[in-house]
Amino acid sequence: MPRRIGIIGFRGYSGAELVQILGRHSGVETILMEHRQDVENRPEPIGRPGLRRIPATAEAAAAESLALVFLATPAEVSMDLAPKLVEKGVKTVDLSGAFRLKTVENYAKWYKEEHVAADLLAEAAYSVPEFHRSLVPGARLISNPGCYPTAANLALRPLVAAGLVDRSAGIVCDAKSGVSGAGRKASLKTSFCEVTENFSAYSILDHRHVPEILMTSGLEEREFSFTAQLIPIDRGILETLYFRVNPGVTAERILDVYQAAYAQETFVRLYKPGQVPDLHAVRRTNFCDIGFKFDAATGRIVVVSVIDNLVKGAAGQAIQNMNLALGFPEQESLL
Amino acid sequence: MPRRIGIIGFRGYSGAELVQILGRHSGVETILMEHRQDVENRPEPIGRPGLRRIPATAEAAAAESLALVFLATPAEVSMDLAPKLVEKGVKTVDLSGAFRLKTVENYAKWYKEEHVAADLLAEAAYSVPEFHRSLVPGARLISNPGCYPTAANLALRPLVAAGLVDRSAGIVCDAKSGVSGAGRKASLKTSFCEVTENFSAYSILDHRHVPEILMTSGLEEREFSFTAQLIPIDRGILETLYFRVNPGVTAERILDVYQAAYAQETFVRLYKPGQVPDLHAVRRTNFCDIGFKFDAATGRIVVVSVIDNLVKGAAGQAIQNMNLALGFPEQESLL
Amino acid sequence: MPRRIGIIGFRGYSGAELVQILGRHSGVETILMEHRQDVENRPEPIGRPGLRRIPATAEAAAAESLALVFLATPAEVSMDLAPKLVEKGVKTVDLSGAFRLKTVENYAKWYKEEHVAADLLAEAAYSVPEFHRSLVPGARLISNPGCYPTAANLALRPLVAAGLVDRSAGIVCDAKSGVSGAGRKASLKTSFCEVTENFSAYSILDHRHVPEILMTSGLEEREFSFTAQLIPIDRGILETLYFRVNPGVTAERILDVYQAAYAQETFVRLYKPGQVPDLHAVRRTNFCDIGFKFDAATGRIVVVSVIDNLVKGAAGQAIQNMNLALGFPEQESLL
Amino acid sequence: MPRRIGIIGFRGYSGAELVQILGRHSGVETILMEHRQDVENRPEPIGRPGLRRIPATAEAAAAESLALVFLATPAEVSMDLAPKLVEKGVKTVDLSGAFRLKTVENYAKWYKEEHVAADLLAEAAYSVPEFHRSLVPGARLISNPGCYPTAANLALRPLVAAGLVDRSAGIVCDAKSGVSGAGRKASLKTSFCEVTENFSAYSILDHRHVPEILMTSGLEEREFSFTAQLIPIDRGILETLYFRVNPGVTAERILDVYQAAYAQETFVRLYKPGQVPDLHAVRRTNFCDIGFKFDAATGRIVVVSVIDNLVKGAAGQAIQNMNLALGFPEQESLL
Repeated sequence: MPRRIGIIGFRGYSGAELVQILGRHSGVETILMEHRQDVENRPEPIGRPGLRRIPATAEAAAAESLALVFLATPAEVSMDLAPKLVEKGVKTVDLSGAFRLKTVENYAKWYKEEHVAADLLAEAAYSVPEFHRSLVPGARLISNPGCYPTAANLALRPLVAAGLVDRSAGIVCDAKSGVSGAGRKASLKTSFCEVTENFSAYSILDHRHVPEILMTSGLEEREFSFTAQLIPIDRGILETLYFRVNPGVTAERILDVYQAAYAQETFVRLYKPGQVPDLHAVRRTNFCDIGFKFDAATGRIVVVSVIDNLVKGAAGQAIQNMNLALGFPEQESLL
Repeated sequence: MPRRIGIIGFRGYSGAELVQILGRHSGVETILMEHRQDVENRPEPIGRPGLRRIPATAEAAAAESLALVFLATPAEVSMDLAPKLVEKGVKTVDLSGAFRLKTVENYAKWYKEEHVAADLLAEAAYSVPEFHRSLVPGARLISNPGCYPTAANLALRPLVAAGLVDRSAGIVCDAKSGVSGAGRKASLKTSFCEVTENFSAYSILDHRHVPEILMTSGLEEREFSFTAQLIPIDRGILETLYFRVNPGVTAERILDVYQAAYAQETFVRLYKPGQVPDLHAVRRTNFCDIGFKFDAATGRIVVVSVIDNLVKGAAGQAIQNMNLALGFPEQESLL
Repeated sequence: MPRRIGIIGFRGYSGAELVQILGRHSGVETILMEHRQDVENRPEPIGRPGLRRIPATAEAAAAESLALVFLATPAEVSMDLAPKLVEKGVKTVDLSGAFRLKTVENYAKWYKEEHVAADLLAEAAYSVPEFHRSLVPGARLISNPGCYPTAANLALRPLVAAGLVDRSAGIVCDAKSGVSGAGRKASLKTSFCEVTENFSAYSILDHRHVPEILMTSGLEEREFSFTAQLIPIDRGILETLYFRVNPGVTAERILDVYQAAYAQETFVRLYKPGQVPDLHAVRRTNFCDIGFKFDAATGRIVVVSVIDNLVKGAAGQAIQNMNLALGFPEQESLL
Repeated sequence: MPRRIGIIGFRGYSGAELVQILGRHSGVETILMEHRQDVENRPEPIGRPGLRRIPATAEAAAAESLALVFLATPAEVSMDLAPKLVEKGVKTVDLSGAFRLKTVENYAKWYKEEHVAADLLAEAAYSVPEFHRSLVPGARLISNPGCYPTAANLALRPLVAAGLVDRSAGIVCDAKSGVSGAGRKASLKTSFCEVTENFSAYSILDHRHVPEILMTSGLEEREFSFTAQLIPIDRGILETLYFRVNPGVTAERILDVYQAAYAQETFVRLYKPGQVPDLHAVRRTNFCDIGFKFDAATGRIVVVSVIDNLVKGAAGQAIQNMNLALGFPEQESLL
């Protein structure tokens, strides 16, 4: 019998992606949880039965015996709903930034808001499955990583951990994202005429995803320069990372470290030194593709890391975490 | 000494286009009239003096001896401001739909709103310069045509007037517009992710621009089928018109009628039978380009008419009307 | 044991779509058939085994016991390969225009080329599954419909067959397609800078897809006006159809006829009168969505029909035909 | 009497931009020089007289008393034509990379081709007008800077020259360009479907524009990491530069240095610390806009520099050089 899975925020871009991917999952029934009446009324075909809908409450989730609920909601909504769901014994995967950082102080510093669920913040299992797989089965609340940090951490952490990176010279991460990363809402900034034929940088050096990258990669803030930028495309993140490696490190060594880290991983793919992926390589997939160009004479390296922000950067990775949490094969519905 | 020209609504797409084109005009000084404090704060370069700003009132316009004011505002704002400006003796060119139809009944039918300036509605000079040039110099209020009607009427009116069109079979106008036609505002419908990789039809058979086309082309509503459609581009309108011509009409005759109508016109360009323009042909110009394909065996004709919706479809044509109103050469700043 | 399916032309857009959809099919193994060495060398991830490759010959197809081969090739290549495959007893689905028309005369008239496989042309089973399902199982060669005709015929044929259409006034089909419809090749016309922020009409009244529409819809050439147009998007076709219905026909009657025609069809979806689909409704699906706006006072109707040109307009429909040919459930891999 | 100016390569994107800008110039007559018969036949309006055309030869240029010729041609064509033009006494502005580097060795290293006009290479005046204005009037051949170097050098040179940059930590330039930078030609890589919804890096660390940046900025290769990237837009370059400044340097000092460098410059605009321009700020203008974000605690700085690659990055800057060469006001036709 399929496990029942609830989605709150199913009209947003990440929520809609959850619905679509779960539609290919052999072990679940998707339930839409109505949180707020949307004004939007897209025309719908006649006579096609949709998914079942219930209210977006912890009570309804418990009454329906939901095995797990996805929160594809803004951080303030997640902070409100997650404690209630967890209290009712409903496993929860939160896609917002509400439970990614470990302390209320750090949250206040980067999100410029007070955190109202401090206990749960400390308890939540932050999980990039490739790094934190073991934490997931026992967790009541799983915090799904941010889109920018996913691409950055998969590229940085193995090299930093292996001591290959010359941290004294600093690490640059120049990040570009499609517009769906900003969420589904009316906004002049993301309106077509403002975005098309444009390219813009925002949150330079102070993006709220920075502490997530520091936390997982092992870098420190003063070593790490991050710029987020908006590309006129629907979906996709490409990050170009620049740093120097320590003396004696070769391209072979770099590739070895990556291969050792990801030999057993389905969703991280590597390229031959000198070759890098573009966004089309990972479009509508749960893959993170990583390639690099290395100049042996000077130790300079440029790493390119790409994901689909709505899949590996949001819904896909959340379902990867759900699969781990509920004992499904990790790749189910994701290949 | 340059004539002073005011613009109300200069932050919208049509208003910004007015500012840009007037910047190339040898005989005017542009004055920005602050109507409402925008929240938007685009970063601006340091130390570059901008245009002079005054309040968006009839009093300020009179006090500054403005020769003419452009209203690049929504219809309800235009209905409020135009009577006040005209009363103070300030010539006004309105780019909204407020004064395009001749009667309050027709306005109520198509705009689904009451008209609150009935006298001025009757008086206003609706002007496609190629057809109504003579009305402009004496007018207190000039109503600038809609974007869709401009492209449609320049393509239809000469052939209808010459009696070439078989009206019994009906005339189809399939119209496509770039997103700037919807104005500059936060809206989910015109947000990047909803528009990109999409194409959608709206206001089928009941678009508020239909009566303007009927009024100028000489067609009747039951003969004319119009669909507006949104293309994922910034600016441009392409209309594909389908009808039949009467027996005996040849491609040469059609071209002759067009050439006779537009021989003296700078801003209407024609193509050889069988050739049609694309949007790039008129991008950022005040031209309307018209071409057609004709099947002599059956009398079927397809006419393609293109304009830039922000230039010939709005700001450019408005300045063409201003040039006529103030005695400047009609092409000034528009070539 | 899975049936082996070969694809010739797997590097093109339709071919790549075949590969992707068949990857979700539970009953087949996909074999890539190398027809021509491509220059293109997209970087590929290390150590990910790809699909098996064999030469693109009838001999190899027979030797490998392929159950069916898809030709995602230009018409001239299909005309060369299809006879050889069929002779070796390999069922073939051709996605090109080579075998869609019934006679060499008609082919020569519209394709401006001589047909070199006249016997097979007469034999080929042209199949829009919704209309020609029964022809497929026994066919040696299945001719997959063109993209524009698929959207047009699904919208027109039921109404024409039911005698609702006033054919004397003519039928207009204004068709718009994404750029992938032009195939994957170097070409100035489809280069980014020529297409972006543009919109253009081509093959007005003489597009080679016209005879396919006439053949299946039951209309005659003199009654039918067709324009193809290029939208700056990757994939999708939207057709806006204009005609009049006969006196006494109501919106309910129109919807009844459509519902009767498609009640058992998975891949055709209908909308309430007055509502029409946009391209996003069918993006990356095998659906054809149809909606209409009707003016009872005048009998004017506007029908909007949308498909994804690479799915229902090419690879998806071809796999639908394969499923029928090989006895798989018709929807397999397509939902 | 207007000076006659010839353009070779007027069908390319830079060439077409030269034609358009020169159309607004009060002191010149533009002559099109036919170099090669293009296959392209865009439909053209009837009866609109075009510009005069002559053959693309040094003889024709001399016979017509051209004051100056623009070479908007590939490097190999420029290497062939420039010596012939100069020999005939015709001042030449070359927009290609042929004459930007100072030695044949450097040219061979970065362009992977032999230089066949060594004498002229040594003589050519490379001119970013803001830096090399004085060299232009006396030059026979002016080498117009590359698009990426223009944006990079205007951002880097003043800070490097003032000794503010901590060069030991390295300087990163992450550059993004619209597709028109690749020129106007049939190519799979720049075809719409390959570029749209994509983003890709190329020529990482070994782009041929690197030596131009080193030459003008004063940096050394081992200090400088450069990646070029393709954005799915028509035109525009945005470069994000990362480095550290020396201890004690403040945001005020950085702005002071920039302001001192550009106080008299029309075409370089600066922003308040913390604010950066986007591409729309400079679209279709000859401006280079520069803004930065600075972290005083760590000395990290991120500079954003934007230009329109076809204007300040090509045709606009070339006309700026022409104005200097022929004694016109430097801003003529460029504001």
